[in-house]
Amino acid sequence: MTPAIANVVFSVRDYALNSADHSHVVSISVFVAVICLCIVIGHLLEENRWVNESITAIVIGCISGTIILLMSKGTSSHILRFDENLFFIYLLPPIIFNAGFQVKKKQFFRNFGTIMLFGVFGVFISSAIISAGSWWLFPKMGFVGLGVLDYLAIGTIFSSTDTVCTLQVLHQDQTPLLYSLVFGEGVVNDATSVVLFNAIQKIDVSKLNGWAAAHIIGDFLYLFFTSTALGIAVGLVTAYAIKELYFGRHSTDREIALMSLMAYLSYLLAELLHLSGILTVFFCGIVMSHYAWHNVSEDSRITSRHIFATMSYIAETFIFLYVGMDALDIEKWKMSKTSLWTVVGIDSTIIFLVLLGRAAFVFPLSALSNYLHKTERPPITLKHQIVIWWAGLMRGAVSVALAFNQFTYSGVTWDPVHATMITNTIVVVLFSTLVFGFLTKPLISFLLPRNVLDRRPTADLNSPKEDFTLPLLSMEESTTTNILRAKDSLSMLIERPVYTIHTYWRKFDDNYMRPFFGGEGPRR
Amino acid sequence: MTPAIANVVFSVRDYALNSADHSHVVSISVFVAVICLCIVIGHLLEENRWVNESITAIVIGCISGTIILLMSKGTSSHILRFDENLFFIYLLPPIIFNAGFQVKKKQFFRNFGTIMLFGVFGVFISSAIISAGSWWLFPKMGFVGLGVLDYLAIGTIFSSTDTVCTLQVLHQDQTPLLYSLVFGEGVVNDATSVVLFNAIQKIDVSKLNGWAAAHIIGDFLYLFFTSTALGIAVGLVTAYAIKELYFGRHSTDREIALMSLMAYLSYLLAELLHLSGILTVFFCGIVMSHYAWHNVSEDSRITSRHIFATMSYIAETFIFLYVGMDALDIEKWKMSKTSLWTVVGIDSTIIFLVLLGRAAFVFPLSALSNYLHKTERPPITLKHQIVIWWAGLMRGAVSVALAFNQFTYSGVTWDPVHATMITNTIVVVLFSTLVFGFLTKPLISFLLPRNVLDRRPTADLNSPKEDFTLPLLSMEESTTTNILRAKDSLSMLIERPVYTIHTYWRKFDDNYMRPFFGGEGPRR
Repeated sequence: MTPAIANVVFSVRDYALNSADHSHVVSISVFVAVICLCIVIGHLLEENRWVNESITAIVIGCISGTIILLMSKGTSSHILRFDENLFFIYLLPPIIFNAGFQVKKKQFFRNFGTIMLFGVFGVFISSAIISAGSWWLFPKMGFVGLGVLDYLAIGTIFSSTDTVCTLQVLHQDQTPLLYSLVFGEGVVNDATSVVLFNAIQKIDVSKLNGWAAAHIIGDFLYLFFTSTALGIAVGLVTAYAIKELYFGRHSTDREIALMSLMAYLSYLLAELLHLSGILTVFFCGIVMSHYAWHNVSEDSRITSRHIFATMSYIAETFIFLYVGMDALDIEKWKMSKTSLWTVVGIDSTIIFLVLLGRAAFVFPLSALSNYLHKTERPPITLKHQIVIWWAGLMRGAVSVALAFNQFTYSGVTWDPVHATMITNTIVVVLFSTLVFGFLTKPLISFLLPRNVLDRRPTADLNSPKEDFTLPLLSMEESTTTNILRAKDSLSMLIERPVYTIHTYWRKFDDNYMRPFFGGEGPRR
Repeated sequence: MTPAIANVVFSVRDYALNSADHSHVVSISVFVAVICLCIVIGHLLEENRWVNESITAIVIGCISGTIILLMSKGTSSHILRFDENLFFIYLLPPIIFNAGFQVKKKQFFRNFGTIMLFGVFGVFISSAIISAGSWWLFPKMGFVGLGVLDYLAIGTIFSSTDTVCTLQVLHQDQTPLLYSLVFGEGVVNDATSVVLFNAIQKIDVSKLNGWAAAHIIGDFLYLFFTSTALGIAVGLVTAYAIKELYFGRHSTDREIALMSLMAYLSYLLAELLHLSGILTVFFCGIVMSHYAWHNVSEDSRITSRHIFATMSYIAETFIFLYVGMDALDIEKWKMSKTSLWTVVGIDSTIIFLVLLGRAAFVFPLSALSNYLHKTERPPITLKHQIVIWWAGLMRGAVSVALAFNQFTYSGVTWDPVHATMITNTIVVVLFSTLVFGFLTKPLISFLLPRNVLDRRPTADLNSPKEDFTLPLLSMEESTTTNILRAKDSLSMLIERPVYTIHTYWRKFDDNYMRPFFGGEGPRR
């Protein structure tokens, strides 16, 4: 290349680069500014009877989308193209890690069986019903063109729930069992949906036969256990490293950096090994808060609680904002050649199937759980069952991300049927978040009057300052009582299996795990 | 497009995407893992006499580069291409914001005049000497092909310093004036270099005449004041918003999210308006720590200190790691057709010019500052002047980023002369960080014996827990004494200008700013 030509090439490249940079910076700035707006408005509306932060973010997203649409003269309604990578590599890990880190471990493990019933079996039942229902009903409405895998994917896409709305209203102290079930199911449900979705994508359609279901379940179990093991391993390594390295001289910045980066590494490793990063990072969060968190300085404890919660909060707001903006995406609406009435029909069908699919497992499985734990805890009442059913009706970011993954290629699609499914997913997410979300607070105040009347501000639920030491204290109490109870009778294991397993785990934890990996010293 | 063709196209796109994704995830994972390694090794070597964290990161970067080079069979030594955008949009803002947020305001503003002398005039003097020297000496060594703008850019590239090494060794409590000067100059110097670099890039070479210097200075002053004003404005808006919105019911996550996002927004806005983001975000940090920080909950205060320090720490480690990896970039070494001896000659020249350029302003300006402040504070001793001179000899990430900006297009160059300048910059950064860095601790322990003997661990300097309330307490004291002193005599303003301006500012701050924007209540 002669220098003259090279110069021209460079100038052109340079110009293109700067122009691309500039629009990139503009997009980021607008997004950051709108997120700030969401935070402020979300805070102002906190005491409002109907609205929650997801609704605020979606509505602000829609409004920003309209403004951008008008400013760009109808060509585009969003400033960032939805990118599954952005979602799965950067936004989802902090949300799930934070869920694991903040989970109230005592309640979570005490209700582990029931949470797994809802979170794993529930997703299987719900996606089977939604898949079968849409496969049966969509062609009747004149909507054809989807393959078998698409219908299976639709089942999982619409089985992942978003329980944030409900958790903002429930009281952890007043209804601990209910709170724990809704929270636990929310997380396990996300993980199960993603894992099941990936298992379905691996199916070879040409060889679809009776073994397919067995394969899916086998794949699912393999992913579930390896991912969990990886997360626990990374969490333990981090706890051990911090315990051994920082003994005596604490450095808050290094501790926080190491915890965040190791957690993120666990997610990336899982993705590289084709495991479920979401499960890995969730269990990594649990292990870190159980061991590593006790090895760091007091400042690091406060900071780590809030740093992870803040990152999760920003990521969630970002996602809902994006969903709101994308709802007005002209291109996809034009691409989808389906008539308005067909779209309304499809969306109503999906929402009906969502309601049905969730009812089909919440009530039977609650009854089963009540029967299995009849000696161990008070039953899940019908009112609580309705709350659990309702809590999982909202569809959120995971549904959108899975739909984009299934029906687009890097956020773009040229297939009208696929474009319709994307718009349908967004309509269902909008409808469920807005309509069901609006009704959540009134419904819960009707079913559980005490909850709403004297409820604390949401902020306290997100960052429970007073709970900093609570899990440990209450764990100690319950351990003591458990051990006493366990000694009452040998038949305990059969009668009260969960408590008994808990007791043995705690003995093991106290005698072998905590001395090695840190955490509170052995308990009396 | 028929469905069959569409399917093929989709499959190919899909495959390419997944493959690109996968290598992207691999790169991120390796980087995250190596950063974790740096944190652990940096911590283990903390008490070492010679090493500091920059050196650790660069050396680990070189080692990783070698491993990657061997594994890729000599084709590549780095896993992420250096991207100025990554640097200027994501890595630099947290570092500079944290510098502003953690700055000890009392000392910073008390020594504001001297810091500006060093940080602004110093950079002008140093870059003039380096530009002139390289313009005179490079062709004598047979290295030709650079234009006038390239030489001017080289002046600013090698005038930006990296004072981290020295700050890790100095004691804020034992030598407050020295610490404040080195820290303050380090930040102002970065900002000045970047602003000056941008001003130079705007020069029209064809119209280069006597007015060019005046233009540069005019541009510089315009950028300096508008950027500062923008930063202060965003900081005040944030402080006001938090004060008005969160009164009575604090939400740590929202407070932290709002502070971080607004700070980042100030940087992005400045870049969009073609101002200096680095100055904007620095002053935004100062204003936020002076007002907004006092409006948030106790938890938010602790968290915000550490969250910004941690982000800055990760960003710095990332940059040094990258510089280490890039040093082994085979492509650039092959591209640069200069002989080894010429390279050694050029690098020695640059290092000589760096030493000379810095000496040319530190000693005269120290004398000037001593003369101007002769009644107000003890003089800067010769030993301290040597420490200041030495502290600014290391070249760091800003130099590399500016060099990439000047001599490459998105991290790639086909021009041998430009490739040589990139490798030269990296060699100078490596040499100065490793050789000068290694000598810093011994030199300072020789010049200021007390400093090294009973020095605290670095961690405490980065996150000064005990200083949380210190700035305010000492501010109160000094205000009282200042007011008393100011009343002693009307000639005070002429004799002790800095103190007098300080006193008036504090009265204004107490009576008008703090009641409106928050912060400690009016002082007695």
